[in-house]
This record gives sequence, structure tokens and C-alpha cells, in this order.
Amino acid sequence: MSPQELHPLDILLNPRSVAVVGASTSDQETGWVARLRNFGYTGKIYPVNPKATEVYGLKAYASLRDIPDPVDYVIFNIPRRLVPRIMEDCVAKGVKLAHVFTAGFSEIGDEEGLKLEQQMTAIAKAGGVRVLGPNCMGIYYPKAGLTFNPDFPKKAGQVAFVSQSGAEAMRFVFLGHSVGIHFSKVISYGNAVDLDAPELLEYLTNDDETEAVACYIEGVKDGPRFVRAVRTCLRKKPLVILKAGLTESGAGAAASHTASLAGSKATWEAFFKQTKAIPAITMDDVADVIQAVVRMRRPRGRRVALVGRGGGIGVIAADICERAGLKVPPFHPETREKLSRIIPEAGAGVRNPVETTLGLGGAADFYERGLGIVDTDPETDLILVHMAVDVYGGHQVDLHERVAYAADVLADKAKSLTKPLAVALYTGGYLDTITAVLKARDRLTKAGIPVYPGVEAASRAISKLITYEEVARKYSLAK
Amino acid sequence: MSPQELHPLDILLNPRSVAVVGASTSDQETGWVARLRNFGYTGKIYPVNPKATEVYGLKAYASLRDIPDPVDYVIFNIPRRLVPRIMEDCVAKGVKLAHVFTAGFSEIGDEEGLKLEQQMTAIAKAGGVRVLGPNCMGIYYPKAGLTFNPDFPKKAGQVAFVSQSGAEAMRFVFLGHSVGIHFSKVISYGNAVDLDAPELLEYLTNDDETEAVACYIEGVKDGPRFVRAVRTCLRKKPLVILKAGLTESGAGAAASHTASLAGSKATWEAFFKQTKAIPAITMDDVADVIQAVVRMRRPRGRRVALVGRGGGIGVIAADICERAGLKVPPFHPETREKLSRIIPEAGAGVRNPVETTLGLGGAADFYERGLGIVDTDPETDLILVHMAVDVYGGHQVDLHERVAYAADVLADKAKSLTKPLAVALYTGGYLDTITAVLKARDRLTKAGIPVYPGVEAASRAISKLITYEEVARKYSLAK
Repeated sequence: MSPQELHPLDILLNPRSVAVVGASTSDQETGWVARLRNFGYTGKIYPVNPKATEVYGLKAYASLRDIPDPVDYVIFNIPRRLVPRIMEDCVAKGVKLAHVFTAGFSEIGDEEGLKLEQQMTAIAKAGGVRVLGPNCMGIYYPKAGLTFNPDFPKKAGQVAFVSQSGAEAMRFVFLGHSVGIHFSKVISYGNAVDLDAPELLEYLTNDDETEAVACYIEGVKDGPRFVRAVRTCLRKKPLVILKAGLTESGAGAAASHTASLAGSKATWEAFFKQTKAIPAITMDDVADVIQAVVRMRRPRGRRVALVGRGGGIGVIAADICERAGLKVPPFHPETREKLSRIIPEAGAGVRNPVETTLGLGGAADFYERGLGIVDTDPETDLILVHMAVDVYGGHQVDLHERVAYAADVLADKAKSLTKPLAVALYTGGYLDTITAVLKARDRLTKAGIPVYPGVEAASRAISKLITYEEVARKYSLAK
Repeated sequence: MSPQELHPLDILLNPRSVAVVGASTSDQETGWVARLRNFGYTGKIYPVNPKATEVYGLKAYASLRDIPDPVDYVIFNIPRRLVPRIMEDCVAKGVKLAHVFTAGFSEIGDEEGLKLEQQMTAIAKAGGVRVLGPNCMGIYYPKAGLTFNPDFPKKAGQVAFVSQSGAEAMRFVFLGHSVGIHFSKVISYGNAVDLDAPELLEYLTNDDETEAVACYIEGVKDGPRFVRAVRTCLRKKPLVILKAGLTESGAGAAASHTASLAGSKATWEAFFKQTKAIPAITMDDVADVIQAVVRMRRPRGRRVALVGRGGGIGVIAADICERAGLKVPPFHPETREKLSRIIPEAGAGVRNPVETTLGLGGAADFYERGLGIVDTDPETDLILVHMAVDVYGGHQVDLHERVAYAADVLADKAKSLTKPLAVALYTGGYLDTITAVLKARDRLTKAGIPVYPGVEAASRAISKLITYEEVARKYSLAK
């Protein structure tokens, strides 16, 4: 494929060379040049700074125009007043894509910022330069060695994230990483004067490296194109959208963040209803659904088998499941009969929820002997195990060993289950219980099991996964 | 006051002597006798076990009837089949209150369990013995040295918790303790064959040691009395109720946990609507509201000033606040003008949400200089500070020092604020950020500031507090 045939985003994501205009001489260790070099970017890097001869070991140029070779991609790290002039340089140089990291444009609402944004946009458009931003972090694409944060994992994964907020992009990458979810590409696109959510979604829909897409969106300029892009994406892969600024309070905040017209609540509610994009309210929601989407086998229905220690917490969990659109029906009498044979404790429930025996060590015993019984129950479609590690308040003798043992046995037993499995770990507020839970979470997520901080998060995510599957089936039938 | 004039619950909570029937000789270190002795109970303790001469250093008796002195309070730690016989001993001995820890009665639904429960109840009723339970943990009353868990704090506080679930009682005490909330009394009452939520509530309403009451309830036998007790309580103090088993799934689970008739969803919805008791879905909800109730100054209205780092997270937070029934209106132009003078960053919002400057260290700077400005804004009623510590993914240099510094400055600044303040700390999923956040949480809660794991929890709790205050005003006007 010749360069002419590449999608503009292919260049954005695979630039042969990157120039950093405003390459910092004072923050060389943490600046854009260092980021690219240290993260494994193998293309050419050109620092541009009229006051420097070298930045982070690379020859610096006074201007973009002085660079002897072609430049695909330019990062703007300069005061806003210089942005239009540098955009002119980009046009002159034949740059393909400008990532304008600089902030202070339409989002702050002053006359100067608005004028500069319009100038920059007009110059780029007339000159054939595509723009990412302004007021954005840019690209994290581990496969190509591109990142906007030096601490992001170098390991690539199958989830793409398109975010109008740079900080939310950072939070999401770390949230994902902490539960073992990795990314194909993450694109922070800010004020979206050119590249906007619809085009980014269209690209990711056809991107073989991406199996699931998440979006943080404050506003969209081309509504109809966005709706088409969302529908097309959902035919191919799961798409979770956090639309921020849905309320009056949030819409006002969005205006001063990325200058977005947040749109009316009614419009967006209709959007979600029509497209069936998976909705989310917080970044935790997004991460929770993504875990289910990436890790969980597809349940045949909404009937949950709840397994865990504690009667009251089981009742609360059953309520939460039903509020999330799931059901916790009684097990088949035969299942109950089998369970009561292996649970010797008086008062322990076998109806569903089923109580694991004797705390955490006993839970391991139940996982070994009882989960197989639950797995064959004809009245339930999936298994949700909850562990109230917090009930011991950090005082349980051998807490860490017991939790680790329970997680080990559960992870091992999971391999032989035919029903989809998810796990909710209640940490409580003590460092000791939290530490034990984080270790158990790592053990379980490494075994490919989705892990949640409680039944509330788990049941919401599972319910959304099931709804998505129902929608995907309909979309596929309508094709 | 002579013993005859005491409320039965006064005896339950201040027994002059306690007998443990079925005092274990094998688990002496962790048994009921050790629990009472080690927790500071100063009354007489009589172990009862026909096979022992001594338990945990105390003379053991073969039977209750052999104890030479009066016994106020008996803990049943015996197999269910023996319970009616021991209840007869209680009657013969003139025991005031029987705490039946033993489980395996109506909650498991077998004929034998139902029969034994009926027998026990009839014997106690005819003989004038009040019963707590069966199938319950009993009493945690630090002031009198009573506990059912040796790891509970000995420090007393001002919150009472009445719980039909023993494990939820444990979870709640630890949840509370982890954010510095302590308890006047906690009563786990299980199947409630005699002492039930209404009577317990009536007592706590008039209890001077209790400033706020929380309940975990699966079912109530005397509905009208419960409604009256709830209304009376709400006239005097905040009351949070987690009614478990509100859904079909949960109601089924409740039946096999404490044999409760959970009641219809419609009935309970009407109950909450009529009584205005503060509703909760999870124990975390309960703890969140209790923190607001105990710690927060009462806001004059629902208008929130949101303060924190990050544009996107501010938009999300504003949406969350409005969904919870609060508002995030724009600051007064004068406030914005003052804020923009101290925030030099391009693109940082001053409209509300207001962005603190330059991450965590800069946040401290904003707390010192900016919170005073926010505090004088006439368009907002309370301040909600959020810190996205997770945005650094545990990689921030000097993370712990920076977070600790920010918390220190905030705790200090809080003293001079006239508006109510709450703080939301986002931990993310890394041990390092969590550890830093837990330390900051301790610093802030020790300064009397309510701290939440996110804006979702904070705004829900604050909104419920405000609703309660509105209700309390109405109740007080109606008096």
C-alpha cells in the first residue's frame, strides 16, 4: 500500500517521523522527546527549539522548515499564540498530522483563544494537515512505541479507548492495567477541531487489533455521522460510551472543559436507546464493562447463581442483581439437595444464594466441591462468586494465606466450569484486607476471570454485557 | 432506679452477670467467655458445661440451675435440640434475657427447626424471659465491655446499628472503624422471635448515647409498630435503613436467611415514602450516609462547589452530583474572577467545577488560596473536593509526600471554612495509590471531614443528609 492509500489515522498511528515543536530543554528527562525515545518509538524524532542545539541527545532544529527530511507528525508543545504560525510551517513542510497538545483555546472561552483556534483550524484545513486536538494528550499506541505517559505499560492489548479528556485517558489506562486489561490504541482528542469521535470510531471499527472500544465523549460536532459510526461499530464489536455532560450541571462543566456543546439530555437518551451503545456513568463503569466484554464467556440468560459467605450479604447481593436487570432464582430442587449434602452448617443457605462453608478456607473447600454442583444447575445461567474479605476487618489469622488459597482454588476450579464466572471481592477499608484482595484479584484476573470490587459493579457490568449480546444478535440478524 | 423499673434492653445491655451455656473447652481463647473477659466486661461470668470444671480460668457449672447467684443474661452456644431445655432452665433461674446464638431454626425451613423455635419461644414467653435471636451474634456495647467479636474497637462512639444479620453487623463495625466512626451499641437480632426492630428502635430513640441509628432489616413482624417507631426516631435523630429483600430475588434469599417475610416491594416503597427514613442499598451506602450525618455541617441547600484536578473528571462529577439530586451551578462572576487570578493555567476551569492547579502539590496550593474564595461564593452551599490520586497510576514521584501534604493543607484549611465540606478520594487499582489515599483519608477523617471513595458515594450521602434535614424540619414543625 502506498502512502497515498493510507487512512490518515494510519499515519497518525504509524508516523515515520515525529517532530516536537517546543521540545523542552529544561524537562528533557520527562519531555515529549524522551517519552518517544524511551517508549520504543523507532521512527525519526526531530526536536524543534530555536534556543537549543540538542534535546535529549538529538540534534535540535530552529524551525520545522529546517528539518532536511519529511515529517509525518508534529507535536505542538508551545504557547497558544505561536500555534497558527507553526501550523503554517506544517503546511509548508507537508506534515500529515498535527497533534496540538497546547491548551487555552475555545475551552476557556476568551476572544483570543477562539480567534487562535479558528486561525489554526483554517490554516490546517486549507493546507491539508489533519489536526488532533487542541487541548489533548494525543496517542498511546504501544505497538508503535507512541505514548503520552512514560508510565503506561508497553504491553499491547485488544481494547481501544477514544477520549475527549486526557486525564480520563490516563485514569482509564491505569484502571485497566491494574486489572490486567491492555490497550490496542488510546486516542485523547480534546477540542476536536478536526479529528472527532465519528472518524476515530470508523477507524477502530475496522481495526483488527481492536476487539472492544470505549469512548469518553463530551460533545460531538457531526451527530448523524456519529450515530452511523456507532451503529456500524456495534455490528462488529462491543462499544461502551461514557457521555459526560448529560445533566445541566455536567453540560456547563463540559463547555468550559473542551468547549463542547454537550447536547440535550433528551437527545442523548434517544441516542442510547436507538443505537444501543453500552452506556456508562463513570470510568469505573467503563472498566467494569470492558472486563466483562473481554473476559467473560457469554451467558445464555440473566439468571445468576450467587455463591459466597454470609446470609445478609447474600440477600443484599440478590437485591442488587435484580436491580441491575438480572435474576437470582431458586436452584433446581436436585441442586439444593446435592448442596445440602456438602454443607454441614445449620442455617447456611442452599436455595440460591448458596453459602460457602466456614469462611475463606472453607470457601476454598466449597469451590472445589460445590461449584461443580452449581455449574450443573438448570435454573441458572452464570455464576457470581462474592468474597466478603472485609468481614474480618483485617484481623483474621492467616488472612493473606487464606485469601490466596481461596483464590488459587477458585482460579483452578474455574477451568472446568461450563457456566460463565465472575468474582466480586469486598475489600473493606483496611490496608491489610485490601492488600490480600489485590493479590487475589491478580491471581483471578491472570486466570482470565473478571473481578469486581463488589456485586454492584459486577452485576451492572454483566447485565450490560448480556444486553449488548442481545443487541448484537439483532444487529447481525438485520444485516 | 430499681431493677424492676429498667427497660428490658437496659438489662440486655448492662447485665450484672452473664452465663455462657455451652462454653467451649476446646476454643477457650476465642470462645464467648474469653471474649467477655478480654473485652472489659466487669460483671460476673459463669461458664456452663457439664463436661468441664473450668473454662478460661473460671469455674464451670454443669447447669444454669447450679449457679449460686442470679443470672441476668444467658448466651446459648449449644446444638439446637438442646435449646428448649436450656430455655426451661432460664425460666427456672429467673434469667432476664436469652441471647440464642444457635442457628438452625425457622431460617432453614425444616420441620424440626420450626418446631424447636416454636417450643423455645413459648417457654420463654410463658416464663417471662426475653429472647434475642435465635441465629444472631448478639450485642456489641463497648461501654459495658460486651462484644461478639474480639477485634472490635473498645472505643465507644455515637452511632447505633440494629442488624438482622450478624455478618453485616461485623462488616459495618469494621467499615465504620476504618473511617473513624465508632458505636454506642450494635445489636444483631437474627430471626427475631421476640426482640424485633420496632422495640430496639424505640429504645435507641431515647438512648442518650446514640446520635444516629442505622438498621439492616430483612423483615418486620409488627409493621404498624415499626412505622411508629421509625417516625418517632426520625423526629429525634437520623435513621438509615437498609431493607434487604426488596426484590423477588432478595426476598427469596431473606426467607432462607432469617425466615423473614420480606414484604412486597410496593409496601416497602410506601414505607420509605411515608416515613422518610433514609434509604440505603448496600452497607457502604449506610456507612456513607452515617459519615455525613455524624461529621458534616448541615448544608443550606443542594448547590455544590466542585473542586479538583482534571477537566473530564469534573464533568463526570457534575453529572453524578445532579443525578444524586444536587446541583453544580456556575459560580458568581466575582468568584470566577477571583479564581482566575490565582489559577494561571490555560484551560483550567473556574466556572464550577474549579480545577486545582498542577496536580497534588499544586492542589495544596489551591486549598490554601482558592478554597477561601470558593467558600464565599453566594451561588453554592457546600464544597466537595475530589482528588484523582489514581491518575498517576502509582508512578508519581513522591506520591505519598504529595498526597499527605495536600491532605494536611486541606485538613488545616477546613477549620476556617464556613461551608460544609466533604472529600472524595479516587484510589484507583494500585496498592501504592491506595496506601497513599488511606493515609490521607485518616488525616482528613481525624480532622472531622467526611471522606468518600468517589464523588458517586459522596453526592449520594450528601443528598440523603439534606433530604433528612428537610424531613426533620417538617417533623419538628408537625410536632
